Amino acid sequence: MDQALLRHATRVCPFLHRTPIGALRQITGTGTSGLLAKARQCPVMRDAVVARSTTKRTLHTTSRRPLATTTDPQDIAGSLPSKASSPSSSATAAAAAAPSDSFDYEQLYQQELDKKHQDKSYRYFNNINRLAHRFPKAHTANASDEVTVWCSNDYLGMGRHPEVIETMKQTLDRYGAGAGGTRNIAGNGALHLALEQELAHLHRKPAALLFSSCYVANDATLSTLASKLPGCIIYSDELNHASMIQGIRHSGAQKRIFRHNDLAHLESLLAEAPANTPKIVAFESVYSMSGSVSPIHEICKLAKKYGAITFLDEVHAVGMYGPRGAGVAEHLEFEANAATDLPVAKSAVAEVDIVTATLGKAYGVVGGYVAGSAALVDMLRSYAPGFIFTTSLPPVVAAGALASVRYLRASQQERYGQQMNTRQLKQRLADLGIPVVPNPSHIVPVLVGDAALSKAASDLLLTQHKIYVQSINHPTVPRGEERLRITPTPGHTGAMMDHLVDALESVWRELKLMRVSDWAKMGGRAGVGVEHNGVAPVWTDAQLKAAAMTTAGKPRDAMLNEAILNHNGAIEARNAVPIRV
Amino acid sequence: MDQALLRHATRVCPFLHRTPIGALRQITGTGTSGLLAKARQCPVMRDAVVARSTTKRTLHTTSRRPLATTTDPQDIAGSLPSKASSPSSSATAAAAAAPSDSFDYEQLYQQELDKKHQDKSYRYFNNINRLAHRFPKAHTANASDEVTVWCSNDYLGMGRHPEVIETMKQTLDRYGAGAGGTRNIAGNGALHLALEQELAHLHRKPAALLFSSCYVANDATLSTLASKLPGCIIYSDELNHASMIQGIRHSGAQKRIFRHNDLAHLESLLAEAPANTPKIVAFESVYSMSGSVSPIHEICKLAKKYGAITFLDEVHAVGMYGPRGAGVAEHLEFEANAATDLPVAKSAVAEVDIVTATLGKAYGVVGGYVAGSAALVDMLRSYAPGFIFTTSLPPVVAAGALASVRYLRASQQERYGQQMNTRQLKQRLADLGIPVVPNPSHIVPVLVGDAALSKAASDLLLTQHKIYVQSINHPTVPRGEERLRITPTPGHTGAMMDHLVDALESVWRELKLMRVSDWAKMGGRAGVGVEHNGVAPVWTDAQLKAAAMTTAGKPRDAMLNEAILNHNGAIEARNAVPIRV
Repeated sequence: MDQALLRHATRVCPFLHRTPIGALRQITGTGTSGLLAKARQCPVMRDAVVARSTTKRTLHTTSRRPLATTTDPQDIAGSLPSKASSPSSSATAAAAAAPSDSFDYEQLYQQELDKKHQDKSYRYFNNINRLAHRFPKAHTANASDEVTVWCSNDYLGMGRHPEVIETMKQTLDRYGAGAGGTRNIAGNGALHLALEQELAHLHRKPAALLFSSCYVANDATLSTLASKLPGCIIYSDELNHASMIQGIRHSGAQKRIFRHNDLAHLESLLAEAPANTPKIVAFESVYSMSGSVSPIHEICKLAKKYGAITFLDEVHAVGMYGPRGAGVAEHLEFEANAATDLPVAKSAVAEVDIVTATLGKAYGVVGGYVAGSAALVDMLRSYAPGFIFTTSLPPVVAAGALASVRYLRASQQERYGQQMNTRQLKQRLADLGIPVVPNPSHIVPVLVGDAALSKAASDLLLTQHKIYVQSINHPTVPRGEERLRITPTPGHTGAMMDHLVDALESVWRELKLMRVSDWAKMGGRAGVGVEHNGVAPVWTDAQLKAAAMTTAGKPRDAMLNEAILNHNGAIEARNAVPIRV
Repeated sequence: MDQALLRHATRVCPFLHRTPIGALRQITGTGTSGLLAKARQCPVMRDAVVARSTTKRTLHTTSRRPLATTTDPQDIAGSLPSKASSPSSSATAAAAAAPSDSFDYEQLYQQELDKKHQDKSYRYFNNINRLAHRFPKAHTANASDEVTVWCSNDYLGMGRHPEVIETMKQTLDRYGAGAGGTRNIAGNGALHLALEQELAHLHRKPAALLFSSCYVANDATLSTLASKLPGCIIYSDELNHASMIQGIRHSGAQKRIFRHNDLAHLESLLAEAPANTPKIVAFESVYSMSGSVSPIHEICKLAKKYGAITFLDEVHAVGMYGPRGAGVAEHLEFEANAATDLPVAKSAVAEVDIVTATLGKAYGVVGGYVAGSAALVDMLRSYAPGFIFTTSLPPVVAAGALASVRYLRASQQERYGQQMNTRQLKQRLADLGIPVVPNPSHIVPVLVGDAALSKAASDLLLTQHKIYVQSINHPTVPRGEERLRITPTPGHTGAMMDHLVDALESVWRELKLMRVSDWAKMGGRAGVGVEHNGVAPVWTDAQLKAAAMTTAGKPRDAMLNEAILNHNGAIEARNAVPIRV
């Protein structure tokens, strides 16, 4: 029994694979049950053991791998394997005087975790440490083991940009590490105000407001706004992000979900409510997991027709689209917006009422914000608990974000390099028949279509090819649409691109994954294998050519890595001092 | 009419005060209506103008001072005063094609702001920039105008500690500015894991989990946990923080509010529910605005008796109490906990099931966390949207927090210095009859008892005495209990203390504020002017003496500022490069 279980477990391991159990025993000097115990501690093999085992509870409790525990098991009682094998150890200890029929809390926690294991949605976090001076490389748990990151949302490499880093280091020296209070009590400074002014300016709105994250910005803005508007109805795209869904739920307002980017459906829902009922249409510009882009003008037109206001999440678009990096809304009137900082009449920027976005993706730092009318922003400032009752962002974060936003308002080369790499990757994968969910944005979602296979592909890329692309499984994407979400950056060189494409081809062969033609035979999935006339990218050829002009005369790879290389020299001496991790 | 309004307005200004209007006109070369327009732009005079004015709407809209707008009014249409004077300018522009009876959104925003002005709860943020190398000083909007900060939650000055700053600068060089993704996608690194391990270790729990802030940690933990527990009832102290209240609300669970620190009331509520109903008792160790401290042992005992688990917010206590800075729970068995890193049997630390706290107050950085059983933490990791769907804390933040937590586990001098300064300040104010809400903690809440007077006192301290103490008004404290919340740090010198005490005495005289004897005549308020036997501080004399031993042989002021002084030399050269704000 144990031997069969062990054989089943080792088969999923990319290293042990078909190694005979006898050989394993010899190599390790450990018996079958000892090897099985080791397998239970492995995040890859663990699932296989659990799935076949009849004693699930004990196993689930003993192999709590993704969470950090003390290295010395003597230090923390609860991390001792012998204690952890009792599912309610801490509850038992704490409940010495508890009534015998009191609720078993630890059992419930375990049951909730079991559900995640059973439906394969339990998440194992990879240990990825992105190296500023080796962008886009990272080291894993082993500091000398380097991998190339192809799935970060630091889309433009601004997180390692010398202007951002140097600004932050100077700000640390001048203003310290933390804000030291809420915005109302000692935590409001010139850098917060300057960043809010910059962001208002970026989106051509009268005002902007900072939050801890865009998750908080979306939650706080939608919940506060919709709870203030009497009888408000929120119209929400079915693919909206969890933060918007939470904000809508927390507002207590009525919700109508419209099919993704479906204008006819949205209009039919809008038409049901009286004109004088307050309404919010909430949607995103670029949808993270599919890369699809919303029809902003058309949605705003519908909203106006029915007396609604629009709430647009540009989280995956700021820094990336538009002549100044303000997002897809700004991109839609590219030339007109490039010519002025004022709101252009009838432009998408002018038509959208409320914009939210993040400072943690293309801008490379952390934090979120909302921009809109002066009174709206002042109302949120005055009423949103998620804004009022929290320590404000550190001045050093505000300074770094400010440097990044200002830099990307002017510089085109990062956007250009990112788009060129995206185009190249999509083309090369198309040539190989490796299925990419068609979309007009910078996201390259490679369809696998199975949870276990998608994770296996991600694991193979990491272990065999030193490439990190996280597998995206349910509930983030629908079951059967599991994918590898690839995000090229301007820092990925031609050699890295070759390596990625070869590695994907190798993994597709090894795991016998479906190609475009296979999906076509099945009638298509997630837009793959379906007849269409191609998807025109948001960045047009003409716009890219114009952007290229600003960076002419330099070989692309060299140009893109110039800043990084310059930065390297300056920091090498300092890195002689090892930091403690 | 205008002249009377102007006179009324200038009277609240600490500078103009009783200056005759005629003299003002002469000095400025401006007529009455011009002066009135200027008054409307002043955050101090504005309220006085609005309160007397019949044209409230227009004024509210034109003087949006606390929010940043572009310095060039040409840049942003909405910030032009002429446009802003129309309350629905942006709505009108956006609603060109809207039905005539559609909802007036801008009007509603204005109405909500009017409410805040009318009940005096509208907040004006002071521009405070805390200077790392001049701690606890800050500059105001004018970089050469320095004030001493007496209300920051950077209680121990760790935000400017050289170990924290240097660690962060090295981490910026090595790992860049941002995490670049969620914990599941490219945003999970060795520093996150190390910090979680450190925090679990600190609280002697098997596991810990990081969040963007403790606001998010409280909201996410309570809402996720209570929504998973079937039929859960949450017992919540009436003074619990907004983040806990939100978490409880978002969980959809039943809530029972018990009177502040009232064990009999808590027990009567607990006894009403069946033993096998899941229950959470949610409370804080140190309550921010009163400085009161909860009876942790007694609450845990009650919880156990009725089969409940305990959720303890140690936000204002971590770093400050306990031999290793783990909070009030650790402080209760001070000597036993000092002798081991293991959980001490029957100690408060062992009895509490779930702890949350922040990295943004005594630890001086930003971020929040929860610590508890392995299964609980893994369940939160797997289900809490506020954890899953947000960019993780930057590695640089994790590194800074880790350095701070580790430093404060060993060092006693900051806790010692903070407590000594607190004791001294409380004693000196008591000698002067300046009313301090009695409490056993490090918070010095000075009772004013009136919203306008409390703000006036804060403004006078800032403008006349260069001392920043924010006024705390409704809804953060009950009406009639408005106060100045003073937070001494170990970095405040004897001279700064003298200056603060003198300034408070001067303000109390100038504004004729109530003293302890006045409150006593009225029967007392918020514990002031009520007979009691004194409140024994959490830090006992014996504990302080023992802590002093670790820092013996150095004059206190010099000792406390030594680190700062050393740091100064090292950064002076670098500060020659001005940073852009």
